[in-house]
Amino acid sequence: MEPAGPRVDAARVIADLRELDRRTGGPKGASRVAWGDGWHDARELLRELLAEIGLEPERDEAGNLWAHLGGESEPTVAVGSHLDSVPAGGWLDGALGVMAGLGVLRAWAQAGERPLKSLALVDWADEEGARFGRSLLGSSAFAGTLDTDAARELRDAEGASLPEALAANGLDLKRMGDAGARRERLRAYLELHIEQGPVLESEGVVVAAVEGCAGVERLRFRISGQASHAGTTPMEHRRDAALAAADAALRIEAIAREHDGVATTGVLRLDPGIPTAVAGGAELIVDLRHPRADALAEMLSQVREVVADSAGARECGLVQEEIWRIEPIAFDPKLVEEAVGACRQVTGSERRMTSGALHDAAEVARVIPVAMIFVSSIGGLSHAAREDTDEADLAAGIEAFGLLANRVLAVDR
Amino acid sequence: MEPAGPRVDAARVIADLRELDRRTGGPKGASRVAWGDGWHDARELLRELLAEIGLEPERDEAGNLWAHLGGESEPTVAVGSHLDSVPAGGWLDGALGVMAGLGVLRAWAQAGERPLKSLALVDWADEEGARFGRSLLGSSAFAGTLDTDAARELRDAEGASLPEALAANGLDLKRMGDAGARRERLRAYLELHIEQGPVLESEGVVVAAVEGCAGVERLRFRISGQASHAGTTPMEHRRDAALAAADAALRIEAIAREHDGVATTGVLRLDPGIPTAVAGGAELIVDLRHPRADALAEMLSQVREVVADSAGARECGLVQEEIWRIEPIAFDPKLVEEAVGACRQVTGSERRMTSGALHDAAEVARVIPVAMIFVSSIGGLSHAAREDTDEADLAAGIEAFGLLANRVLAVDR
Repeated sequence: MEPAGPRVDAARVIADLRELDRRTGGPKGASRVAWGDGWHDARELLRELLAEIGLEPERDEAGNLWAHLGGESEPTVAVGSHLDSVPAGGWLDGALGVMAGLGVLRAWAQAGERPLKSLALVDWADEEGARFGRSLLGSSAFAGTLDTDAARELRDAEGASLPEALAANGLDLKRMGDAGARRERLRAYLELHIEQGPVLESEGVVVAAVEGCAGVERLRFRISGQASHAGTTPMEHRRDAALAAADAALRIEAIAREHDGVATTGVLRLDPGIPTAVAGGAELIVDLRHPRADALAEMLSQVREVVADSAGARECGLVQEEIWRIEPIAFDPKLVEEAVGACRQVTGSERRMTSGALHDAAEVARVIPVAMIFVSSIGGLSHAAREDTDEADLAAGIEAFGLLANRVLAVDR
Repeated sequence: MEPAGPRVDAARVIADLRELDRRTGGPKGASRVAWGDGWHDARELLRELLAEIGLEPERDEAGNLWAHLGGESEPTVAVGSHLDSVPAGGWLDGALGVMAGLGVLRAWAQAGERPLKSLALVDWADEEGARFGRSLLGSSAFAGTLDTDAARELRDAEGASLPEALAANGLDLKRMGDAGARRERLRAYLELHIEQGPVLESEGVVVAAVEGCAGVERLRFRISGQASHAGTTPMEHRRDAALAAADAALRIEAIAREHDGVATTGVLRLDPGIPTAVAGGAELIVDLRHPRADALAEMLSQVREVVADSAGARECGLVQEEIWRIEPIAFDPKLVEEAVGACRQVTGSERRMTSGALHDAAEVARVIPVAMIFVSSIGGLSHAAREDTDEADLAAGIEAFGLLANRVLAVDR
């Protein structure tokens, strides 16, 4: 049954994205790192586009930008994502969800109708954490999970502190948590995003309903062997930290495959790291992800075991350090079913998937019912100038997202 | 049969080494990098010590320092090594051979005897290549193997060129090859050096005769996969250059063990090398060594094959590049037998070994008959402040070297 509500103009949303790219992109990719000029330019465009439909956004204490369209009732459905990008990022990551959300508000505003519930567009601040290394900043302040003591210590590559950058943007770290007051009126949060992975494209599927975000365990391993001369140290006398690390990385891969999760050794640094010396030290950073907490815990325990074993087999020492973790986060089952229905309606597919990447929706889901829709990414590429999605697929994703919003606005909850 | 000739005063040689360490060492290790102040200080001490026995050194066109003690005949036996060190190096590497050679000249000078042949002490310039990355500089100029066009392009970390450093030392790169004129009179070159490896210590052997230097093949491999998101890229979609590199490094190790050679992956760099990205690129530098040319060639061919296979198995591209190579160099069999005899006379051991490290003797051996003696290294450590050798072992090595020199001076050839 088709819910009531105007249809989003997908072509206009795509035109808005192209205009954003024209203003803040370039041959090297999108340049909208949070708190800086490109980001301010992006938000200025958003203000202009909101003004066209008679809306003026307001900024909360965490720097998130909100625009409200009153409905028949006070309870509010929020739609959005983030305008900030990594340096040399893609034109769609985050921006797609904001412009599609704007499309939903525009459809209602231009139809001259009032939705059953109120609508809010939100542009979360600093999702990427590109400058200070803390992602999901604005959405975690909203969700009440931001550790302001830890955030106070964050510095960028030039040594500027996060509080300084916030102050330059007229914000006060101490007051960021007050952004949570906006939770009260919200009944749902919906986000459209590119998949940033190759799964949908490889299956020939255009859009999918996202059931939640995988949990992450990120660890540092420091393996210490004995640096020695590459020419004078016979193989049987070596305590080669590089080979212990290589062995560990391959065994970590096998653990991920066995559990149907993912594991990545993205950092592997050798010390001294010169051609003529057996490596005396090796540092690995390993990132483990799984949608299920029990499987993630099992992967973690096995990974700790095999790295210790790989080090021990070569008489190397080992120091393990937990860098960061987040438990798997499930989205709202009823909203996910609405997303499945909306995707089916547009493309015929009922594909559900778990996001391996984190999104603002993961923070928001701690306090508000959430659903997301993914649209397929060409080559699975993201965080790169070549990030792209076929225009017909973009339109299908925007259309499905519009239907999802209308479904959720229509539900009485 | 004991050859004629005075005995080297090993205690005095060790005292000279301690004085050198006092002047140019410190808690961080020896600081005698070629062409700089510490190296000049070391050579100043050598001048003082030579002056005590009435000798004045002269510098050749390549910066090598020579001191001559005339014998009954013109043909000359050269003894020596190098005073330059790596930054934060050890007190014995190179210095032992120079001070032991000085000890040989001092023994004859103080005995008031003329040896059957003339004696020359040589302190080769810039053996380590620590500043410009070109090792065996002075000895290769002497041997006629220095490529001056390549040497002209060398720069240090501050951007200064080798010709500039030479000019600051009163030398002209274009004339370095003229140092080869000194080859004419030389009949033998003898060098005492620490092993810089763990083999002798692990066997309880103090000194060994060195039969030659292993050949080296040094290669760079660039593996190119696809950088992708650590969370959104399923294991079966990855083209992980880090894992291809890890697999290659382990298989390279197996090849070295199979051939009784050594292989070292001392450089392994990932790109982008961040925790949240599957590595799209990996660079490996592999150093292969073997005393026999046929076995080294076989190792090289197998290594090229397995790296290509490791890359191919993960759908990664591969670029191979030869960085540097040197064939195995055998020392003079008759001189090596004299060295075995001298070692046996002092310690009872007839241990022969091939050097896995390169030495000035390897360059000199191209044009002059050569032999070396190794003395054991504690823990196999070298190029480090902790480099050391038991004092009794040092004395045994110096004594064996003195006997070797006397044997070679006495032989009529």
